[in-house]
Amino acid sequence: MKLKDIGEFGFIERIKGGCLIRDENVISGIGDDCCVFKTSAEVATLLTTDMLVEQVHFLLEVIPPYQLGRKSLAVNMSDIAAMGGTPKEAAISVAIPDTVDLEFLDALYDGMKSMAKEFEVNLLGGDTAFSPDPLIINIALVGEAREEEVLYRSGAKVGDVVFLTGPVGSAAAGLDIILKGRGSDEWEELIEAHHNPYPQLKAGRTIASMQVANSLIDVSDGVAADLGHICTESKLGAIIEEKMIPTTEQFRAYCEKFQEDSRHLSLHVGEDYVLLGTVPVESAARLQEALESNGCQFHSIGNTVAELGLRLEGRDGSVEVIGANGWDHFR
Amino acid sequence: MKLKDIGEFGFIERIKGGCLIRDENVISGIGDDCCVFKTSAEVATLLTTDMLVEQVHFLLEVIPPYQLGRKSLAVNMSDIAAMGGTPKEAAISVAIPDTVDLEFLDALYDGMKSMAKEFEVNLLGGDTAFSPDPLIINIALVGEAREEEVLYRSGAKVGDVVFLTGPVGSAAAGLDIILKGRGSDEWEELIEAHHNPYPQLKAGRTIASMQVANSLIDVSDGVAADLGHICTESKLGAIIEEKMIPTTEQFRAYCEKFQEDSRHLSLHVGEDYVLLGTVPVESAARLQEALESNGCQFHSIGNTVAELGLRLEGRDGSVEVIGANGWDHFR
Repeated sequence: MKLKDIGEFGFIERIKGGCLIRDENVISGIGDDCCVFKTSAEVATLLTTDMLVEQVHFLLEVIPPYQLGRKSLAVNMSDIAAMGGTPKEAAISVAIPDTVDLEFLDALYDGMKSMAKEFEVNLLGGDTAFSPDPLIINIALVGEAREEEVLYRSGAKVGDVVFLTGPVGSAAAGLDIILKGRGSDEWEELIEAHHNPYPQLKAGRTIASMQVANSLIDVSDGVAADLGHICTESKLGAIIEEKMIPTTEQFRAYCEKFQEDSRHLSLHVGEDYVLLGTVPVESAARLQEALESNGCQFHSIGNTVAELGLRLEGRDGSVEVIGANGWDHFR
Repeated sequence: MKLKDIGEFGFIERIKGGCLIRDENVISGIGDDCCVFKTSAEVATLLTTDMLVEQVHFLLEVIPPYQLGRKSLAVNMSDIAAMGGTPKEAAISVAIPDTVDLEFLDALYDGMKSMAKEFEVNLLGGDTAFSPDPLIINIALVGEAREEEVLYRSGAKVGDVVFLTGPVGSAAAGLDIILKGRGSDEWEELIEAHHNPYPQLKAGRTIASMQVANSLIDVSDGVAADLGHICTESKLGAIIEEKMIPTTEQFRAYCEKFQEDSRHLSLHVGEDYVLLGTVPVESAARLQEALESNGCQFHSIGNTVAELGLRLEGRDGSVEVIGANGWDHFR
């Protein structure tokens, strides 16, 4: 079935069901000029927005619509996780080409709703429009955090331990597999990492509530680029050890089998949506314990230093300057 | 100059200046995973988002980028106005094709900033991406209102006066002029109405703070469609009088000169972004007085009735049912 069979307002009616997950604090959801809700008096409001453009962020023929829906919300939730917050209310804009049918859209919204339900986020509003060509999804997500717990990119101090809350490179390898037509059950974990990233909200809340970490970001552009953001905003540098970068067994097997550059995939591509942060040396063990006892991970990968720039200590002990480069939309 | 000369992060640095209009309540603006701000304890939070897609919502070769910037923010502010609220914090997503140069983007952001400054809105965050073809702008705007003052589409009561806060049809005529190549100084007001709509926040606040109106919406899809939304949500009908629909002298002159259908342009096209609402008969005069003493307009155009559907009383006194049709993206 096509959108033109039911029209814009028929479509809005069709997707409305299952959008309201929690009704406490919600005054009015989908169907008016704005959605209306209350925020608690003692918290800070977080707002993030991410746009996913077909052919740039996803390939329509490759990613199943249900997973595209989950991923669209996941990348926004990951930004809330990286501030130590809790996601609350979302507004979704979609621009839809007439080649996309209703069944695709139903699956897309089912994916968003499954993610929303899992993390107790309400889908409260948005905008629907026609697009002459690519499918475009934009989500604006409002979250909250206690002001004193919010974690910025700018708070790192010289001598901090640099840590990751999970393995990196898997999403990059998954994309590589898809683009090179190597898809098979053997690499399912890697393809899944690319299609279905999981926002680390529990890790983010654990880190934030302890109030010991100095900075936090999510790995969307790649470890080098995202650590580069922390270094730039905090006006310091970092040295990380290649052998400490956590990767999965399947990632290492894939790189070995196809002679792919594991260093490039794990440091300069991104989209793993794990968290990257810095914590004073004296609090690192305590943070690790708290994360692990909550079922999360903590991997120390190096330290912040006064000298600007990023340096990588290779497996052979040699140290080289690496660019803080990852994904740049315009270069 | 092209975006690729400065890259994604160079571009973000370039547009940062002038984005923070008010710093009270803002904890962190552009440059982190989320923006962070405080909302007041006693107000409800409003969230709206609108996507503008090239070729669908605007023609790149026709609208000057500065005005496109203003309009992108104006259409979102209009949604806040239609709830009776005050706009506060915005996050802007743009997907940019490589045919668009930096000078165009500078003008686009200057337009947004001029609108933001005029209405004391902060531009606090967003997302930038590459687009394979159309230019896409999505704005998420957070506003606030006292809960008891928020005006919904669903509150109209039978017997209410239906009112408009300004003339309609001008934006539709302006688009008609542009599409038919009739642009000239003679019709400047109409072209301006299409390119540079002005969000009626003062009217919205005046109406909301009096707490007498029963419903409110902004005229984006056209009077018939938007009044149709009020009727649907409020489960009633309306009868309006053609001779009471406010239009400008230039609009009437244009329709007469080119034999254009003034009824169609004023009722079924939209984009004037004036406010349309309903108020009990006994409060209409008081509301009119308050609006006019604040430099705003009030035009009674008819009444709500129990019988569902929209009816129009023509200039000759005959009454006919009209469709609640206006712009539908998918039909």
